[in-house]
Amino acid sequence: MITRTAAQLASLVGAELDGDPTLVLTGVAGLEQAQPGQVSFFGNKKYKQALEATRASLVLVPADQPRGGHAATFLRVPTPHLAFARIAQQFHPAPTWPAGVSERAFVDPGAQVDASATVMAGATVQRGATVGARAVLHPGVFVGEGASVGPDSVLKSNVSLLERCQVGARCLLHSGVVVGADGFGFALDLAVPEHVKIPQTGVVRVEDDVEIGANSCIDRATTGETVIGRGTKIDNLVQVGHNCVVGPFSILCAQVGLSGTTELGMGVMMGGQSGSAGHLKIGDLAKVGAQSGVMSDVAPNATVIGSPVLDHRDTLRSWALFARLPELHQQVRELQRRLDALEKKP
Amino acid sequence: MITRTAAQLASLVGAELDGDPTLVLTGVAGLEQAQPGQVSFFGNKKYKQALEATRASLVLVPADQPRGGHAATFLRVPTPHLAFARIAQQFHPAPTWPAGVSERAFVDPGAQVDASATVMAGATVQRGATVGARAVLHPGVFVGEGASVGPDSVLKSNVSLLERCQVGARCLLHSGVVVGADGFGFALDLAVPEHVKIPQTGVVRVEDDVEIGANSCIDRATTGETVIGRGTKIDNLVQVGHNCVVGPFSILCAQVGLSGTTELGMGVMMGGQSGSAGHLKIGDLAKVGAQSGVMSDVAPNATVIGSPVLDHRDTLRSWALFARLPELHQQVRELQRRLDALEKKP
Amino acid sequence: MITRTAAQLASLVGAELDGDPTLVLTGVAGLEQAQPGQVSFFGNKKYKQALEATRASLVLVPADQPRGGHAATFLRVPTPHLAFARIAQQFHPAPTWPAGVSERAFVDPGAQVDASATVMAGATVQRGATVGARAVLHPGVFVGEGASVGPDSVLKSNVSLLERCQVGARCLLHSGVVVGADGFGFALDLAVPEHVKIPQTGVVRVEDDVEIGANSCIDRATTGETVIGRGTKIDNLVQVGHNCVVGPFSILCAQVGLSGTTELGMGVMMGGQSGSAGHLKIGDLAKVGAQSGVMSDVAPNATVIGSPVLDHRDTLRSWALFARLPELHQQVRELQRRLDALEKKP
Repeated sequence: MITRTAAQLASLVGAELDGDPTLVLTGVAGLEQAQPGQVSFFGNKKYKQALEATRASLVLVPADQPRGGHAATFLRVPTPHLAFARIAQQFHPAPTWPAGVSERAFVDPGAQVDASATVMAGATVQRGATVGARAVLHPGVFVGEGASVGPDSVLKSNVSLLERCQVGARCLLHSGVVVGADGFGFALDLAVPEHVKIPQTGVVRVEDDVEIGANSCIDRATTGETVIGRGTKIDNLVQVGHNCVVGPFSILCAQVGLSGTTELGMGVMMGGQSGSAGHLKIGDLAKVGAQSGVMSDVAPNATVIGSPVLDHRDTLRSWALFARLPELHQQVRELQRRLDALEKKP
Repeated sequence: MITRTAAQLASLVGAELDGDPTLVLTGVAGLEQAQPGQVSFFGNKKYKQALEATRASLVLVPADQPRGGHAATFLRVPTPHLAFARIAQQFHPAPTWPAGVSERAFVDPGAQVDASATVMAGATVQRGATVGARAVLHPGVFVGEGASVGPDSVLKSNVSLLERCQVGARCLLHSGVVVGADGFGFALDLAVPEHVKIPQTGVVRVEDDVEIGANSCIDRATTGETVIGRGTKIDNLVQVGHNCVVGPFSILCAQVGLSGTTELGMGVMMGGQSGSAGHLKIGDLAKVGAQSGVMSDVAPNATVIGSPVLDHRDTLRSWALFARLPELHQQVRELQRRLDALEKKP
Repeated sequence: MITRTAAQLASLVGAELDGDPTLVLTGVAGLEQAQPGQVSFFGNKKYKQALEATRASLVLVPADQPRGGHAATFLRVPTPHLAFARIAQQFHPAPTWPAGVSERAFVDPGAQVDASATVMAGATVQRGATVGARAVLHPGVFVGEGASVGPDSVLKSNVSLLERCQVGARCLLHSGVVVGADGFGFALDLAVPEHVKIPQTGVVRVEDDVEIGANSCIDRATTGETVIGRGTKIDNLVQVGHNCVVGPFSILCAQVGLSGTTELGMGVMMGGQSGSAGHLKIGDLAKVGAQSGVMSDVAPNATVIGSPVLDHRDTLRSWALFARLPELHQQVRELQRRLDALEKKP
């Protein structure tokens, strides 16, 4: 069992400790589920009652949170949620696997697999591919010709990393992810007819510290690179089209779709099921609401929502009036009646 | 060839038999495609002509359906569509496979596989996992450490059931399903910057009699469980976020997305491509229309549609007026002109 | 290195050559990225400056494009983009693999694999399945009982082609595609309660020259066939429900969803994330905008957009007015005030 003292945790997250520094902690949980010996956090005033009732022995609280006679040890921090994440990682380190290539993996003699990497039974590494130090390939993983997996990256079951595509260090690709399928590019020849395939000769480059959710797809570029920037996190079933450049530290929620050659800045957030037309830019730190449709450039720092998107305040106003359209329609008819009457007056 | 008499089928579905009880049936088909010897059903008045023209030898009809000189044997039942499903199952029993673990499967010695289960070549069962009686794991299936597959459940090709997640009895997971990928949880540390991963330490519990469509994803809980309730049916490419609880007997159509900690009651229906924001409740027997966006709690028995959703009657009214906005705009301009004229009158 | 002369390329695409017929070309690239020796194309007037600045040695231009003192050789063609596609294919022929079945593939003795086909390690071909001449099955591919893969078709890693489904000639199925999962069909028995499964006994038939994007799903028919017509191209994460018939030469962009029994004509285009309700028809050459929702039949040649869809001009007008709803609302209130005042006049 992993244990930490309150003092160790305070030091880890730079907290002000209010309570017993020698207290021994054994895990983390939500305020309501926590047992004695566990760490929890209080980051939202609406859970005040849960804070009062919690059995957690240590609670991460905002810097200005008064003690109020609570029995637990408090760690005061600027952002309890963030401190909780770092502490949870202490109790739940990423799993490790014994190094080595399974005899039942399919590794080409012309592939380079670091001696400290793990390649499980049923995984494939083709000619010219490289697998870095401590990287882990789970069963059913496919690493195509000349592709590369950086150090400490993990490809879960049935991930496909296609030819020549690159995954950086410390990435986590969940089951079923496809990196490097062909971009969707055709030219119509009406005379045949035929959709003539434009060869997709580029690659995908996934930078360091990226996480990609289950069954998401990142298409290779027509020429050049599709790029997923450093530290970006992508949820499940997301589509990133060919030649997109997703800036660092962005967040793409589940089922987002980016058409080809979309360019996202740094720290962009896109809500679930939102999408973007191609060949446009979404600026740094912009936020796009769930189910929204981006049809033109989005300015840095903008918050947009709707399909097509507008500034979120405008969309919220129009949504409210959309629900009242029958009333507005009625008002206009009433005005017409009154005006008819007035005009008939001598 | 599987055969049944009309009397056997009438008994199976509790029908009133109007015709020849010794008639021998050999299969099922739609009214238009059916051949002599086959069973069909008539459940919708708009197919009255197809009923008259059908070559089916036996037709399931509503209780009040008159014979009208039809040559076929009739089985009168409350719901022909349902009776048809049960009869179709008689002629098309689920396929079976010989029991046993393929020598070319990757089964850890520390896994428990029932002797009556089937594990095909290229399937993986890791340490501590259990596979129940008569369960079937197709090629490319991954069952992670400590995961469990209940009796009579079938995991089709390339399904991933990740560590410690549980699938109940008689479930059917179609190809490419991912159960137990990490929930999408991060805390932003602007100082680095870094999206700090919140360890996803919970599991997914899929109850009995659940069907999950191809390439759908059910994420594991941050702590505790993500639950898919008994008898729920999920279509393809659906996303269920961490800590969701989907009540029993619900229906999630293709490409639905549930954000984290969404709670669905019993018998909820969600149309294709609809989605829900997180941390809210959709009540028992509620219906959510296709492409709809749920942004607040939905009451039991409600029928909602739109993005964001309103009661479906309200949305239908507003949609109709949305299409007439140019006309409304024109009317308002006309009113302005008329009023201008009136106001100028002495 | 693959080389072609300007004369060879002109002949290939039926171009009028304006420049040096003996010029030797070594590859293709965009106007801005092209190096000397490479072919590029100019198809859009807005890239006029890029044309002037390009280092490409040969440029495909429209028939009426004046030379203007440009140093490059010009090939004049009706559609530069299309000619570029055909020329790019010359320099990037589809990859080939050595024929033969890997000893580490899982091929049933009762399967028929053409001697010129490639079956890689970790691929499965079950009893009664057939794999045609020069077809390629990548690792993790599953070809179920009685399924068939036509000549020159390629199934990339972890594709599932389920029992009895058929893929024609020269098809390309990207990683994670699932062809032939069960259609989503249940009949509710409230008395149990239970969603009774309607056996899905039909198949999928994918005709020749079809491309299907990563992790897309084509469900088998309840009875009969789900059909993907000749030359149709499908992007990633698309859902095609049971019994759909997608006409030839159609284009389904990423994350499109077709409900059961949707019928698409020839050359239909559906934008990303759009969807269709079931049991309806979308006519030849119709275009459906991104994120649109089709809820009734669409006429041939129509261009529709919105959710629900209208003619695109109507939707664009209503979208513009939707954004101005607050203004319209204000105008109506102003009219009311003015009318109140008028009515009070003696």
